[in-house]
Amino acid sequence: MPIVTIQVTREGSQPGNDSVTADEKARLIAGVSQVLLDVLNKPLEATFVVIQEVEMENWGWGGLPVEAYRKQRNSTPG
Amino acid sequence: MPIVTIQVTREGSQPGNDSVTADEKARLIAGVSQVLLDVLNKPLEATFVVIQEVEMENWGWGGLPVEAYRKQRNSTPG
Amino acid sequence: MPIVTIQVTREGSQPGNDSVTADEKARLIAGVSQVLLDVLNKPLEATFVVIQEVEMENWGWGGLPVEAYRKQRNSTPG
Amino acid sequence: MPIVTIQVTREGSQPGNDSVTADEKARLIAGVSQVLLDVLNKPLEATFVVIQEVEMENWGWGGLPVEAYRKQRNSTPG
Amino acid sequence: MPIVTIQVTREGSQPGNDSVTADEKARLIAGVSQVLLDVLNKPLEATFVVIQEVEMENWGWGGLPVEAYRKQRNSTPG
Amino acid sequence: MPIVTIQVTREGSQPGNDSVTADEKARLIAGVSQVLLDVLNKPLEATFVVIQEVEMENWGWGGLPVEAYRKQRNSTPG
Repeated sequence: MPIVTIQVTREGSQPGNDSVTADEKARLIAGVSQVLLDVLNKPLEATFVVIQEVEMENWGWGGLPVEAYRKQRNSTPG
Repeated sequence: MPIVTIQVTREGSQPGNDSVTADEKARLIAGVSQVLLDVLNKPLEATFVVIQEVEMENWGWGGLPVEAYRKQRNSTPG
Repeated sequence: MPIVTIQVTREGSQPGNDSVTADEKARLIAGVSQVLLDVLNKPLEATFVVIQEVEMENWGWGGLPVEAYRKQRNSTPG
Repeated sequence: MPIVTIQVTREGSQPGNDSVTADEKARLIAGVSQVLLDVLNKPLEATFVVIQEVEMENWGWGGLPVEAYRKQRNSTPG
Repeated sequence: MPIVTIQVTREGSQPGNDSVTADEKARLIAGVSQVLLDVLNKPLEATFVVIQEVEMENWGWGGLPVEAYRKQRNSTPG
Repeated sequence: MPIVTIQVTREGSQPGNDSVTADEKARLIAGVSQVLLDVLNKPLEATFVVIQEVEMENWGWGGLPVEAYRKQRNSTPG
């Protein structure tokens, strides 16, 4: 009866995508359900998965909205 | 001060609806708040309820997106 | 497939109890599962309920730990 | 590595706004991350913040959808 | 920056264990982090995993505490 | 009516402490409630705060339990 909640920013994983695709969601669901089966022997039909996509401006990191934080990190000299 | 979070798929409970209606949400809020009052004696004004509707493709069950899982179950003989 | 999460402070509902009892938990589970059945027609076996008991000092209200806040409210004149 | 989740109703804080603005979100992120730094000495880059905006009809208080509850409170004589 | 929350009942996966072991937790963390890398190309160091163990009496299924529900299902004739 | 959930590892912020102290929790509650007041004009008495302390072995980062991850990072040469 596990519940797995996956929170990710709403953005594409590849150029041309602006969000997680239905196929990627299906693979996330399959993948984490399999982990619960492999590690804890939980049958697939006992696991719920909930994916929550979070708008970029609603996700903070480093005290900043995540896009601003990524820019700051990338501009940090090596 | 209880907090009750209700997560459901975004779909209608009846033909013609494609999501939970405002009236159904009001009844969910009233119902679960009443349960907290009845069982733990929590006053209604102390309870917060948050309803989270989850897109069908974001909900996994049986290692599959939930629509695919429902189809598979329904086609299982016996 | 609803998931209902109930967060309450870890305290008794009656003198002599210092936490939610197993019987009260069973009644919370039964009660909210029934609400989902009544309002959205979700079968009982499709609903998961998770009860989270939160230590008193971990719950804040009014900018204070909840016990301090309750005392402050109770001492407020009329 | 703290995670701070902020749940608020989707509404404006001032006349003319109908939701939390990007600037307000940035200030929420900055503010709560700073609290974690000040109190627990967690570096800013170790803190994630997730803001969840909840539709007004999905938020319950006092056994009612929150807008209905606010009206009821405001109409309560002194 | 994904956050993966895994909620499981506090019980052993094998006879002799009465909870999830540290080794099993490490494998859950490794497994789901790898899924996020494989599917969405999220670097391992960007993923947080939180495992929440829920007491058996705090988990409801089928309108009952989960242990009672499991007994009922197992006693259902074929 | 905001709800702020703060998840941190169960560990001390200073030598000699092995968990977050009651005083630190009170300051977290005061601090984040003040942020909601300052930024969104939410009255203190409308904000709930829930602090969740997560066992070190239940928190993952970098595909590892967090203690193992910290050791690995610290041993990375320059």
